[in-house]
Amino acid sequence: MAEEAVRNKKVVLKKYVTEGYAEQSDLETITSSINLKIPEGTKDAVLLKNLILSCDPYMRRCMTPRDPSHYLPSFELGKALNGLGVVKVVESTHPNYKKGDLAWGYTEWEEYTLLVSPPLLIKIDHSDSSLPLSYYSGILGIPGLTAYAGFYEVCSPKEGEYVYVSAAAGAIGQLVGQFAKLMGCYVVGSAGTKEKVDLLKNKFGFDEAFNYKEEHDLNDALKRYFPKGIDIYFENVGGKMLDAVILNMNLNGRIAVCGMVSQYNLGKNEGIYNLIDIVYKRILIKGFHVFDYLPQYGKFLDVALPYIKQGKLTYVEDIFEGLEHGPEALIGLFAGENVGKRSLVVARE
Amino acid sequence: MAEEAVRNKKVVLKKYVTEGYAEQSDLETITSSINLKIPEGTKDAVLLKNLILSCDPYMRRCMTPRDPSHYLPSFELGKALNGLGVVKVVESTHPNYKKGDLAWGYTEWEEYTLLVSPPLLIKIDHSDSSLPLSYYSGILGIPGLTAYAGFYEVCSPKEGEYVYVSAAAGAIGQLVGQFAKLMGCYVVGSAGTKEKVDLLKNKFGFDEAFNYKEEHDLNDALKRYFPKGIDIYFENVGGKMLDAVILNMNLNGRIAVCGMVSQYNLGKNEGIYNLIDIVYKRILIKGFHVFDYLPQYGKFLDVALPYIKQGKLTYVEDIFEGLEHGPEALIGLFAGENVGKRSLVVARE
Repeated sequence: MAEEAVRNKKVVLKKYVTEGYAEQSDLETITSSINLKIPEGTKDAVLLKNLILSCDPYMRRCMTPRDPSHYLPSFELGKALNGLGVVKVVESTHPNYKKGDLAWGYTEWEEYTLLVSPPLLIKIDHSDSSLPLSYYSGILGIPGLTAYAGFYEVCSPKEGEYVYVSAAAGAIGQLVGQFAKLMGCYVVGSAGTKEKVDLLKNKFGFDEAFNYKEEHDLNDALKRYFPKGIDIYFENVGGKMLDAVILNMNLNGRIAVCGMVSQYNLGKNEGIYNLIDIVYKRILIKGFHVFDYLPQYGKFLDVALPYIKQGKLTYVEDIFEGLEHGPEALIGLFAGENVGKRSLVVARE
Repeated sequence: MAEEAVRNKKVVLKKYVTEGYAEQSDLETITSSINLKIPEGTKDAVLLKNLILSCDPYMRRCMTPRDPSHYLPSFELGKALNGLGVVKVVESTHPNYKKGDLAWGYTEWEEYTLLVSPPLLIKIDHSDSSLPLSYYSGILGIPGLTAYAGFYEVCSPKEGEYVYVSAAAGAIGQLVGQFAKLMGCYVVGSAGTKEKVDLLKNKFGFDEAFNYKEEHDLNDALKRYFPKGIDIYFENVGGKMLDAVILNMNLNGRIAVCGMVSQYNLGKNEGIYNLIDIVYKRILIKGFHVFDYLPQYGKFLDVALPYIKQGKLTYVEDIFEGLEHGPEALIGLFAGENVGKRSLVVARE
């Protein structure tokens, strides 16, 4: 079988980073090899060529040692990171997949990955090749479904409501804002650079946007942008921002908690002091996970694809090329350097 | 009309108490007078004889100056406190009420109260006089409906789930625990004295109970009482307890936030540090207010009355007699001195 062995570059975790910002040197790109053949007798296996890897904020938490409380597996030291991506099936003994299929789902940060009973692998109907394949790591994949489920299912939005989105220029936030506008809501987003703020206002059609780093007092900023209060908050950041938002929520407000990226680098979380307002204002706070909404993926595509084709839903990507740039792409994401959805192209089809 | 004037004792607020424990001297009992006659031409009015006044934890917040963020009106200095109570209609120009009717709803802390367009006044069918009238300030009034709505509607309980109730020997907690047992849940309650803990286990049938004041580490205590985690938390106290509970919640756990009594005496709220777990564990936190569930009051009675008559639902009251003991009754409640539902009898029928 040696003649089938090919090079297999991987991005691996060198050491766990419990606290503080992760650095590129915490990751490393190594070169290994893989037999491009599923071992004989292995059932339900797929050998995947990884095309595009998704860089996601939650991966920061996978760089910390295993903590049973956060229900997220940690990366294994010295092994390829795992994450979401777009793949092509090279060989399959799994009845649902065949050679040549395109799919998205869980894979690993390497050139080729052998998976037995893949935990999540959804075939892509790419007959309409006018859309970039990278969209399946973003707007048409997990970030898209997350925005859809979090906004429509968790927040139960109504026309005319006031919606606030943090990390609004990211993979998910940009879509939440656009969904909210399509619904007839008033939408304000925040982000951490002028470039992102401009994008929110000029590209994604947010009514207003601001740079949270330039605000000394987030409570004041929110009062300025929401003189009539906030009905819906799509929470991506946590910490001080959440605390200020709670003060500005309206009666019967809803907070969909998608993530709390501001806390992922901290050894100890920031305190939240204003929770008592959820009693007075009958606020709903709901942590949600997109996997609970996977059965709605088809319905989501039925909504999103026409919007995209009609130009009513746009998507900004921030693409890196080459597995060797994986550490840079991922670590930069954690520092908020991305403008739009960050993905890493490993190979073209 | 002077011949109709009678004595009208009142409990009034002398000064606002922003921070720290309120004291009896912050309140005072004064004697005034009232004409026992609705002024001529006044429509939709009721003149009420106050029979039983409810002492409720939320009233602590009404002793602070008006804060628009908490959606609760403050008491007016020098005027009778307002609150819930059981009343008898002395005279009425309101089409829904007639002389002699018994009712419960909003009234004031005095002997007689004249209300025009009463905001909440629900007639009592007291044909079954085997139940004490005071029950309508407790198990058959707002505390009962609060327990019912918070547990069944907000928490969506299922048989076999693990339920934790704080302030469990209070007006609401004792009922939540009993509802949970009737549903087939495993229930643990906490309270602040040995007497209350004994009551929870021996009178209300909680599976376990503990004195939170004797626990150095609430997280450890909860891990001991809930080795399999908590599915439902009925939140009455907030602060450090909430923080410890979040750490021990299970996947898809639900927290119904009824109140946060531990915070009402503080000038600055305690910080909550573990909210990030609501993402990992997809937790729902919902502040609710019983007034949103008033339309279900009839349905609630249909459930509660048979349970009471069959002895499946019991209720412990902590009754003070005499309006002049109002300050003592109310201030003691804020300090957790009550064992069961604290009410103040102003007059017998």
